[in-house]
Amino acid sequence: MPIDTAELHRFLIELLGASGVIDDPAEFARYTTDWAGDKGGDPLMIARPGTPEQVADIVAFCHRHQIPMVAQGGHSGLVGGAQPDPERGELMISLERLNRIRHLDPINFSMSVDSGCILQNVKDAAEEADCYFPLALGAQGSCQIGGNVSTNAGGLNVLRYGMMRQLVLGLEVVLPDGRLWNGMHALHKDNRGYDLKQLFIGAEGTLGIVTGAVLKLAPRPQTSRTALIAVPDVASALALYAQARRSCCDLLSAFELIPRVCMELAFEAAPDLPDPLDEAHPVYVLMEVSASGPADLDTMIEHLFETGSEQGHVLDGVLASSETQAAQLWQIRESMLEGQQMRGEHLRTDISLPISSLTAFCDAANHAMAQRSPETQVIAYGHIGDGNLHFNLLPPANLELEAKKALLHELEEVLFDLVDAHHGSISAEHGIGRIKQAPFLEDLGETEYTLLKGLKHLFDPEGLMAAGRILPR
Amino acid sequence: MPIDTAELHRFLIELLGASGVIDDPAEFARYTTDWAGDKGGDPLMIARPGTPEQVADIVAFCHRHQIPMVAQGGHSGLVGGAQPDPERGELMISLERLNRIRHLDPINFSMSVDSGCILQNVKDAAEEADCYFPLALGAQGSCQIGGNVSTNAGGLNVLRYGMMRQLVLGLEVVLPDGRLWNGMHALHKDNRGYDLKQLFIGAEGTLGIVTGAVLKLAPRPQTSRTALIAVPDVASALALYAQARRSCCDLLSAFELIPRVCMELAFEAAPDLPDPLDEAHPVYVLMEVSASGPADLDTMIEHLFETGSEQGHVLDGVLASSETQAAQLWQIRESMLEGQQMRGEHLRTDISLPISSLTAFCDAANHAMAQRSPETQVIAYGHIGDGNLHFNLLPPANLELEAKKALLHELEEVLFDLVDAHHGSISAEHGIGRIKQAPFLEDLGETEYTLLKGLKHLFDPEGLMAAGRILPR
Repeated sequence: MPIDTAELHRFLIELLGASGVIDDPAEFARYTTDWAGDKGGDPLMIARPGTPEQVADIVAFCHRHQIPMVAQGGHSGLVGGAQPDPERGELMISLERLNRIRHLDPINFSMSVDSGCILQNVKDAAEEADCYFPLALGAQGSCQIGGNVSTNAGGLNVLRYGMMRQLVLGLEVVLPDGRLWNGMHALHKDNRGYDLKQLFIGAEGTLGIVTGAVLKLAPRPQTSRTALIAVPDVASALALYAQARRSCCDLLSAFELIPRVCMELAFEAAPDLPDPLDEAHPVYVLMEVSASGPADLDTMIEHLFETGSEQGHVLDGVLASSETQAAQLWQIRESMLEGQQMRGEHLRTDISLPISSLTAFCDAANHAMAQRSPETQVIAYGHIGDGNLHFNLLPPANLELEAKKALLHELEEVLFDLVDAHHGSISAEHGIGRIKQAPFLEDLGETEYTLLKGLKHLFDPEGLMAAGRILPR
Repeated sequence: MPIDTAELHRFLIELLGASGVIDDPAEFARYTTDWAGDKGGDPLMIARPGTPEQVADIVAFCHRHQIPMVAQGGHSGLVGGAQPDPERGELMISLERLNRIRHLDPINFSMSVDSGCILQNVKDAAEEADCYFPLALGAQGSCQIGGNVSTNAGGLNVLRYGMMRQLVLGLEVVLPDGRLWNGMHALHKDNRGYDLKQLFIGAEGTLGIVTGAVLKLAPRPQTSRTALIAVPDVASALALYAQARRSCCDLLSAFELIPRVCMELAFEAAPDLPDPLDEAHPVYVLMEVSASGPADLDTMIEHLFETGSEQGHVLDGVLASSETQAAQLWQIRESMLEGQQMRGEHLRTDISLPISSLTAFCDAANHAMAQRSPETQVIAYGHIGDGNLHFNLLPPANLELEAKKALLHELEEVLFDLVDAHHGSISAEHGIGRIKQAPFLEDLGETEYTLLKGLKHLFDPEGLMAAGRILPR
């Protein structure tokens, strides 16, 4: 059945008004180009509903007329999940106007919001009520809650507060046939039947469009301490992590691995940034501890320094003595990303491993990269407490762009094979989308494949919603 | 197709040996009578496999021969989920021999176990490695990990560590057709496709039989403090809870609501137990704070006492000065359950509400009970931090047993309607099983019903596995 785009346009204009529909391809770029600059295909047109009911009406229309559709949040997923399929026309449903904070309940430590709310706005609203919404990631000024739910977002504070999955109490979802499912429960415990919301979390919009969420809040931290610790190697960083969990009483909110090469990249991007320690060291750990009440965080960190030193895991370290100094330490983390970006074409990965396998994995991966391409530079940093590494690669500067891409593609395959051999995941945070589908399918067992296919078919038998993401069409 | 029990018996004997099969009805009682003394039907026979592969072989056989089956763990679910269906013969698959601790990884804070491991044994093994498996519940000496997974168990420490769902990193499951799905990942972050394990957690064995799990561990607490605080009413207890989350920096591991009537029940069961405060007060809070490192817990609790007193929420209180005194305070919590049991026939419920609705709900429910049956005694205690109440009822002592049962059934319906009106759940912890199916279905929307049915059909189209639990056959 050919798609009658004129009828779709009439329907959308009637439902949403002129400002709710974008059909001029000149205006598509903002919606088709993602955070990293990757461009997807053009959509049929873009609908901008303002209520969950409007989303349901649009989806029901598409279902009736067999029109493929894809929802889009803040567009920072980076795996092509929310970009229009370049191979077939899709209606893009942008959730940017679905941005009300519905209700904040400080006693229940919960907050219900529209899915198009920007993460930073949700965090700000929580703070105003002396609460805290812990999800923290680079894109928080633009990414949306619905996208955070659909990709099961992670970020900096996962080791303390969990992934997005742990922060969702309830969901409201428009199913692929247009039914609006209300699962906006604000309950911390609920064991009635299968927990349907779990299916939509991390499903990348393939099973339904999230229109609302009840989020779990925490008390707002009142004090925090940031420390940078130099360690001899990755193995010591891991041992120090296990000790930090104990010494800091699970008040650890970040524990980042930063090799010296990343520090150098940070100085390239921000030449005024001071080197925080007198000497250069091979590996650093950047950690933060925070508390909502009268906790003596200095004592905890001192305990960690002492114990870690006794065990031989600490070479040097600095505990930020002011907020300015803490901000400077965190700026290393941000600037090193900029420094990486400044080097041009490179491979970004987002892998995870059992924490105890990180040393063996890094050794094997460094060795494999050095063998295949000695001039490629490994930039491996990440959230140690989650076993989550960004094992990135900077190709030799003297190669042509196409040669760089070919080399990186080849090295990625080697890397992913090693991830698999070490029982890791090729996607710790960003999901599969379209970009990671090939390596994902390669390692998927048949049992799992049939179950995933069965789930997709149960919710979306016609394959109209975000088809071709995660699983092939 | 009539079930050929002789052939089933031959198959099981050959696979498991004589000690792996129980077919003498005289030996069934231990498996058919649950923790609370409720008796289910008799099974066809009982299989006791010792490996995941044996479970898979048994399930494949049953699938081939269309034999209904039900898995059983420690038998403390209390909703009839793991008891044989009295209306049709089922093969019971007991997991009690599947009890190996497979691997403990102290750096990854994880542990992989067979599903038949008893919770207490898992906790003990974690402690030996200076780690902590936080799930804590009354039945921990007998309940099994597979049951904890399948019922998404809760218990005392949920407000700090989450439900069982938050403590599972990976699962191994035998699907209803006998395929063995290996999802034993030990990853703290993994966003590859739909998170299948979530479907089996809380599914009460209706979608597959859990044979193994990778559990998430925490650092072992080194110090803890227990306090009993008298408060004027439930509203104050809630306000104090919100303050305690802040003052105690999320190191709060328990926060229990105990009305005076429960204290009296505790003294009935344990007459030697001292009344911890000089005067009787209407409502108490029993709380525990714990830490794995050098945290000054006394300062935190003092901060809570002071702030709570200023706000008018604290009448009196005692901070246990020794482990003996702490144990005595916790004995109140245990003895009150015994006291309740000693009163004979009574209604136990396991409901949850948004924490902020607990006051309004308790007021409405107390009022409704007083109107319908002034002589029925309300015993409402629970885990405030989870919004989880055991709103239990002791009927008038002078009624006959049948009249008591009829009255309690009537009052339960009134109570469940109020739970619904206050956006709560009639099953916070124990699940639906067979016993809570009628009220569960009554409030289930059509959209949700079709999705749940669809999921069950996807995994178990012939309805052979734990059929009739959660959803009707």
